[in-house]
Amino acid sequence: MLHFAMFQPLPGFRDFFPERCAKRNHIFRLWTQTARSFNFQQYDIPTLEPLELFTQKSGEEIVGQLFNFTDKGGREVALRPELTPSLARMIGSQANSLKRPVKWFNIAENFRYEKQQKGRLRSHYQLNCDVFGEPGVGADAEVIATAVGCLQVFGLSGADFVVRLSDRNLWLHFLESQGKTGDDAMAVLGVVDKMERLPREAVIEKLEPLFGNKAESFLQQAQSLIAIRSLDELKQFFEGLELATELKQTVDERLGQWSSLLDWLEGLGVTDVLRIDLGIVRGLAYYTGFVFEVFEKGDDGQLTGRALCGGGRYDHLVKKLGYPDMPAVGFGMGDVTLTDLLESKGLLPDFIIAPEIYLVVGGDHERKIALHDAQRLRALGYSVEYPLKNQSFGKQFKLAGQSGARFALIYGEEEVKQHQVKVRDLQTGQEMPIMSVYLVDALGQFFAEGIPAHEPEGADPSKL
Amino acid sequence: MLHFAMFQPLPGFRDFFPERCAKRNHIFRLWTQTARSFNFQQYDIPTLEPLELFTQKSGEEIVGQLFNFTDKGGREVALRPELTPSLARMIGSQANSLKRPVKWFNIAENFRYEKQQKGRLRSHYQLNCDVFGEPGVGADAEVIATAVGCLQVFGLSGADFVVRLSDRNLWLHFLESQGKTGDDAMAVLGVVDKMERLPREAVIEKLEPLFGNKAESFLQQAQSLIAIRSLDELKQFFEGLELATELKQTVDERLGQWSSLLDWLEGLGVTDVLRIDLGIVRGLAYYTGFVFEVFEKGDDGQLTGRALCGGGRYDHLVKKLGYPDMPAVGFGMGDVTLTDLLESKGLLPDFIIAPEIYLVVGGDHERKIALHDAQRLRALGYSVEYPLKNQSFGKQFKLAGQSGARFALIYGEEEVKQHQVKVRDLQTGQEMPIMSVYLVDALGQFFAEGIPAHEPEGADPSKL
Repeated sequence: MLHFAMFQPLPGFRDFFPERCAKRNHIFRLWTQTARSFNFQQYDIPTLEPLELFTQKSGEEIVGQLFNFTDKGGREVALRPELTPSLARMIGSQANSLKRPVKWFNIAENFRYEKQQKGRLRSHYQLNCDVFGEPGVGADAEVIATAVGCLQVFGLSGADFVVRLSDRNLWLHFLESQGKTGDDAMAVLGVVDKMERLPREAVIEKLEPLFGNKAESFLQQAQSLIAIRSLDELKQFFEGLELATELKQTVDERLGQWSSLLDWLEGLGVTDVLRIDLGIVRGLAYYTGFVFEVFEKGDDGQLTGRALCGGGRYDHLVKKLGYPDMPAVGFGMGDVTLTDLLESKGLLPDFIIAPEIYLVVGGDHERKIALHDAQRLRALGYSVEYPLKNQSFGKQFKLAGQSGARFALIYGEEEVKQHQVKVRDLQTGQEMPIMSVYLVDALGQFFAEGIPAHEPEGADPSKL
Repeated sequence: MLHFAMFQPLPGFRDFFPERCAKRNHIFRLWTQTARSFNFQQYDIPTLEPLELFTQKSGEEIVGQLFNFTDKGGREVALRPELTPSLARMIGSQANSLKRPVKWFNIAENFRYEKQQKGRLRSHYQLNCDVFGEPGVGADAEVIATAVGCLQVFGLSGADFVVRLSDRNLWLHFLESQGKTGDDAMAVLGVVDKMERLPREAVIEKLEPLFGNKAESFLQQAQSLIAIRSLDELKQFFEGLELATELKQTVDERLGQWSSLLDWLEGLGVTDVLRIDLGIVRGLAYYTGFVFEVFEKGDDGQLTGRALCGGGRYDHLVKKLGYPDMPAVGFGMGDVTLTDLLESKGLLPDFIIAPEIYLVVGGDHERKIALHDAQRLRALGYSVEYPLKNQSFGKQFKLAGQSGARFALIYGEEEVKQHQVKVRDLQTGQEMPIMSVYLVDALGQFFAEGIPAHEPEGADPSKL
């Protein structure tokens, strides 16, 4: 049994055969391209970190979900479940010398020991984009637009996903108006976070310890807040509350920031995929302002409940780790649900993994000439293949065809004697002999235009 | 103290700040490009694997060097110290359907719990290129040429490194002629492996249990074998031994394979960096034929003792893991010693991490126009930056200059009113107003040719 287990990746881990690896790399490539277009700079962090780095941020509860152990030097260590604490360490340690805002991205493997289910593996890859050092809504907008860009670049659109934009601050202001602050307010947010997935009675049951016989009316109010889809409605909602002067002023300021954020997002052209939706509060305790999640839409236009991306503002983390104050906002986007979505929409191409050129070689003498050319062509960036042992011409032509190469170069006894190479277009069968010294030029032309079916009048193709 | 430790990567692990990450990625990029030019296909494997996968290949001794632990499901697991066993699993599991030869490469992080020293970290990245399914010397040559290509692509040459080519088979034939086979032969190879780093007396001491009073004469003979630098000398060496008929025939066949391998390598143009050198035997127990190591050369042309790359043939591993027979040859090349070497030779460029375009924006109204253009330009592949909050023009021009961007696009009140953008070359200070609708075309030209110092006669640049 152990023997069999040895021959499988561990549960929740993946082997990437070339076809699958090419698809994964396609996702990495387009993520990288998009993050760079927003001028994010790439960084990377260790796979293994001190356990305390994670418990300091997320509490001891997280240990249950970690691959953690004691190393041979007696250190408590863990495979990173996320990048943010390590990132905060890097940023924090250079907080005084980094030019603000700092815009950094990374694509890395994260690990969680958790129950396996569709879209949840124990190892997955995540794109992280974060902006540090800018407290204003411009940074929130930048991060949201980057997340949207990282989906649109694959051909996904508002028909496929929606960005649900929420605000922990407005929630806290609303809860303050209901007399809930501090731990009580956090407890309510914990219920709000689960509301979508729980039956109404269960929600009431959770609210009763906090609101007593007002649980029902609080729930109604919360649901009307969650149902809001425009800034005007949001303003009306808060106008309808009886707010103390100071709180009213705070709320007005916040609504002003909402207005400004929406202006930025309109400029960035992402309002058509955006939905104001206070139903999002984000589970993690460290978010401090605007938060958002990107959800998949089903064919019926309704949300499927599968999140593609989540993020928001976390202004206190760097300081909490003991470094200078450094406001921050960022998002993470995983490869697993995105791959599933792209596959289902036919947006993840099959990659043709093939050399560009296949050499068909007569014998040992011809091989020396052929290998020399192979190295010349490789230095120019061509991918060149040939049989690694002696084979008949017939077998080699079969291999050349199977390889997927565009051209075969034929090094027969005759060709080599005349310092020529015969180039065959493996799609059309068209052939042309080329003097060896002109091979590079000729191939450049053939890749662009194919081998001409007829030679120009009076031309001697062997001298081309 | 724990608090401090939390704020450092673990010993032997690295944070990659953007400047360092760019250099690392440069190495990955050129490795990838070279491996692809040889038509290797990229794959990937899990970071965490069943412990037994590694002990099965390398014996229980390896556990002392691993980051291994028991996971929450009671599985004995380890961070991969190398890729080969996982690769053999992937190849083995599809042995009957994969088209041979299989040429695969990967770049991945490997982990070893070992004493830290220069060039040895606990986490490093390694390029692996392997050919499966071809027993002939063509595959050995392909792998050696790929390794050489993966160093030459950085500008390294025969002045910087040498490929030491050896052969476990010839060693075993020689030892058989001295009456040593099986475990005894392996024990001798173990001594040969350490010979370079040990004083003569220590070597004799290790050989005496195996050779008794013939230890001295064996050592002399071994040293003359190790000193050989040409195929002719190699032939003479074995002619000088009194070989039984059958062994002589085996040796002759092997020397024929040597001749053939050197022909392949000559064709591939790598003989000038190659040195026949039986001083290499490679520590790992699983190599079965030709083996090689690439060593750094010092300024004096002598070997520094630092290996950049090692590889060889390991025909039995796939079968040993219980799969069909699958001959194999490959190499691994790490990032740590290579990075040191490239740095010391000035061959690792500093990368300029900068946006291409910086937007200078008047106010909220102008920002909407500017952000819209930013998104258009990003979709075309430009990296575009702008301040994430309101700033004075003066401050913005300063930021634009510091950003390293080539061009600033200026969205002042006047420009926006006239549907124009002013483009400023941040190197020359040259400016030109452009109608917004022609911005993309004009920028394409400016990036190629710069902003012209004088407008063409009669042209109205604002209509350009």
